[in-house]
Parts: sequence; structure tokens; C-alpha cells
Amino acid sequence: MQFMTTLADAWQQRNSLLCVGLDPDPARFPRHLIGRDDAIFTFCREIVDTTADLVCCFKPQIAYFAAHRAEDQLEALIEHIHARHPGLPVILDAKRGDIGSTADQYAIEAFERFGADAVTVNPYMGRDSVEPYLAWPGKGVILLCRTSNAGGSDLQFLDVGGGERLFERVARLVAEDWNTSGNCALVVGATFPDEIARVRRLTGDMPLLVPGIGAQGGDVEATVRAGCTADGGGLMINSSRAIIYAGGGEDFATAARAAAIATRDEINRHRPVPVHRI
Amino acid sequence: MQFMTTLADAWQQRNSLLCVGLDPDPARFPRHLIGRDDAIFTFCREIVDTTADLVCCFKPQIAYFAAHRAEDQLEALIEHIHARHPGLPVILDAKRGDIGSTADQYAIEAFERFGADAVTVNPYMGRDSVEPYLAWPGKGVILLCRTSNAGGSDLQFLDVGGGERLFERVARLVAEDWNTSGNCALVVGATFPDEIARVRRLTGDMPLLVPGIGAQGGDVEATVRAGCTADGGGLMINSSRAIIYAGGGEDFATAARAAAIATRDEINRHRPVPVHRI
Repeated sequence: MQFMTTLADAWQQRNSLLCVGLDPDPARFPRHLIGRDDAIFTFCREIVDTTADLVCCFKPQIAYFAAHRAEDQLEALIEHIHARHPGLPVILDAKRGDIGSTADQYAIEAFERFGADAVTVNPYMGRDSVEPYLAWPGKGVILLCRTSNAGGSDLQFLDVGGGERLFERVARLVAEDWNTSGNCALVVGATFPDEIARVRRLTGDMPLLVPGIGAQGGDVEATVRAGCTADGGGLMINSSRAIIYAGGGEDFATAARAAAIATRDEINRHRPVPVHRI
Repeated sequence: MQFMTTLADAWQQRNSLLCVGLDPDPARFPRHLIGRDDAIFTFCREIVDTTADLVCCFKPQIAYFAAHRAEDQLEALIEHIHARHPGLPVILDAKRGDIGSTADQYAIEAFERFGADAVTVNPYMGRDSVEPYLAWPGKGVILLCRTSNAGGSDLQFLDVGGGERLFERVARLVAEDWNTSGNCALVVGATFPDEIARVRRLTGDMPLLVPGIGAQGGDVEATVRAGCTADGGGLMINSSRAIIYAGGGEDFATAARAAAIATRDEINRHRPVPVHRI
């Protein structure tokens, strides 16, 4: 599938800008899953199956699988999403970044091995470190721009000349120079709505992946007003912990569904022009 | 083992600043290994066993294992290095970088699962994204500063105020603020010796991991003169492809040994004061 067109279709057909982040931490799993060999897969699959009609994409975070030697469960999870929920893109949140020959391998990891539709990439090493991902034009390449954590300001907010901040330079480089395959997107944290607006002005209709609502405290209304495109799309607003750990018991997936509905609806209340009214 | 003291001991006892990078690409393996289930492990183990007395550390690059679903072979390789070559630190080249809760998981991946002694980390997300690694004081945290690829200049060479470049700000932040546990090091490419010298001035005796000699064309003499500390240490000079693919036949490990000897000796010729003359 083509990431960009699939995402646009998902925004419209599902009337949702919500991305559910899959950060499975076994220490927070409900009791009945503890001790199961496939606990990580099972936990995520239940979240996926009960929220798939409410989201525009899913975003598994690879660190939570890698820390537990559970790459096989990540493979199975992405395969499950594609098989059971066609039309929903999967973003592998990996934040890779390395020289070209190594980035070739990371692109194979994300796109061939795991079958992800898009991957997050760190821009610190510059354009040639990103090109190997751009060589997969059907896949999405989502570059870190302005991250949602407090320390993000340490480098990203530095003035790199004429009042331009480093994150703005990244946005401009990606929009004007790196996005030759038309498959780039950017990460901009919900904790900085003014900066979402600045990135939106620099990048036209480029999709923005926005972490930081929910557990991290970002403002949904300000995020939507700052980042939505004129047609009511343009955003993948991620919530991980506030949704997947909404409940702690056997009904955790039901609780996750309720949290996802509430978040989707809160986002939609503030969209300037919903893509599709249902 | 404590990464910093083990590294200093390795510099002295082995009289070498050479780091051999393990970037195993099955497409470049000698014919007799092709088709073996453990080809990646076997290839790397032979390189390790024939070069261990010539190096101060090994640096496996995780992307080459992950692209081939070979994390188990990476685990076995690091275990082998520790068991057979005690006193040689292993740097997991992973260039991770993410918010704190995710970085906790990446630290577990690198230090617990793989048993690495140090890991490379991307600084773009700032101090709080690095703190989870600093919480492992016996482990090394090697931050990207000035990378060896051409595109490294896209961001790292930007003037962030008063003529200070972004990579210099990273060096200064790490030296003055982030290195509270005394376990930080920096990556500075051999392709930019003047910049190695500037980073050395900013960071005192902090160890520098220097990729970019060999296949990438960096200048060994200029690197050593710019980066060595007064006692002849301070550098982990990495060579990957020029050593591990020095030969293409059944004698590939012998060829790798010859290339490692030549590189170690070339480095040592330019050291101001060898730590230890043998």
C-alpha cells in the first residue's frame, strides 16, 4: 500500500485523526496476561481489534518489543493489523538515524522484515542518512522535528540564524529539499502548539505526527487548530499510555476503546472542517 | 565491568586505539559461509577471534543484525566476546534516541538484553532523552556529535550563535552538563580532523569514538594528532568494512588480521606518546 494515500483514505473513511501508540510494558499488563509467552502480542492485538474503527493509524514503539526479545511478536502484530484491518497504516516508531549503508539495513528492518508502512527517522545526521528510506516511495518517512519532551528544546529550539530555530530549519529542509519522493512527514509535539502552527506554515499539507496528548499533557484543541489542514486532515495525533492503560483489568480493551472514542471525539470537535461528517 | 576503566585498561594493555566495527552484510560474506543459519555469528566470531589482541574495543552495528532477524546471533556474539576476550568492551552501535520512558526500554535492550558495555545515542531530543542511559553508571553513553558522512553538515555545522556550531554545542552540553555520571563519550568523524581538535578542546580527556577511516576515507595521521590525549589515549578509531572485508575467501579472517595490524600500527606511528611501548 502507498502510505500517503492510505493515510488520507483512513482520515476520510474513518473520520479520525487519532493514532493509537502501542507501547506495551508488561509491568502494566492486566493480571490475566502475566506469564503468557505471547503476552505482548495478545495485549496489543486486543487493543488493536477494539480500536481499529476509531483510528487513522497505529504506531508500535519498537523499544518495548526489543527490550523483551519480542521482535517476533512485533512481526505478528503488524501482520495481524494488515490482515484484519486493511487500509490502516502502521508506523514503526524506531527513530533510526545512521550513515547510508547502515540506513539501508534499517530500511530493510522496518519495511521488509516488519512490514511497516512508515518509520520514524532522526534527522541529526542529515540528508544522506535519510535517502535510503526515501528510496522506498510507497513507504512513509516521518522525521523528528520538534519533539514533545522538555529536553527537546536543548537543541531543537536553538537559533540557527535570523531567528530561525533548528526545528524550523529541519521542517524547511524536509519540505524544500528532502521530500523528493513525496513520502515525508514530520513529528511535532502537542506540547508546543505554536510550533505546530509554524511547522504547518513551512510545510504546506505535509502530514504531521503529533505525540504528547494524554499522558504528556498536550492541549488537543490548540493542537488541532494549529495543525489541521484546510480540509480537516493533516494530523496523526498520537495517544499511547492514556489509551492502552485506560483500564487495568480483564476489560482493559473495553476501557481502551472508551478512551479512544473520547479522544477521537475531542479531536473532531475542534477540527475546522471535518473531512467527513458521520 | 566499568566501561571507562575497562577502555582505559584496553588502550594501555593492548597498545591500541583501534575499534573494529562489526557490520556483517551477508551479501559480502565468503562463499563457504553462505546458506549457514549462523553465518552472521560465525563471520563475526572469526573476525573477533583473529583481531582481539589488536583492538581496544569492538563495535557491532545492530542494523545489520536486525535486517536479518539475527538478534539472537548478536546476543551470542557479545556473549562470546565477553567470555573469550575479557577486558574488551563492546559498544552497541544503535544510535537510539527517544523520550525518557522509551529510552528506559532502549537502555534495557542494549545493556541487559545484549549485554553491551556502551551504546551510541543520538542527542537531537535533548538531555532528558539521554538520562535513562546515564542511570547505568557502569555503562558508556556515546553521543553523536560530528558524524563522518557528508550530510552530517546539514544540521551539525549550523551556527547556533556566536560562531558556535551545533556539534560544538553538543560537545559542550555533554561535557559541562550531561556527563554527571562520568560515563559519556562522543562520536566525531575522522573525515573532519579540525573538528576533532575543537571537540577535544571542549571536552578535556573525554573518549572520542571516531568512525570514518578506511572505506570512508578519513585521514589517520590528522585524526590522531587532533584527538589523542596527552597520555596517548582518548580515541576509539573505528574501521569496519576496510578490515572485515579485507579478504573475500576462506582466509577472510587472516586478511582481516593483517588489515587490523596495519591500521593499528599506522595509528600508533602518529600517537604523540604511546601509552605503552611494546
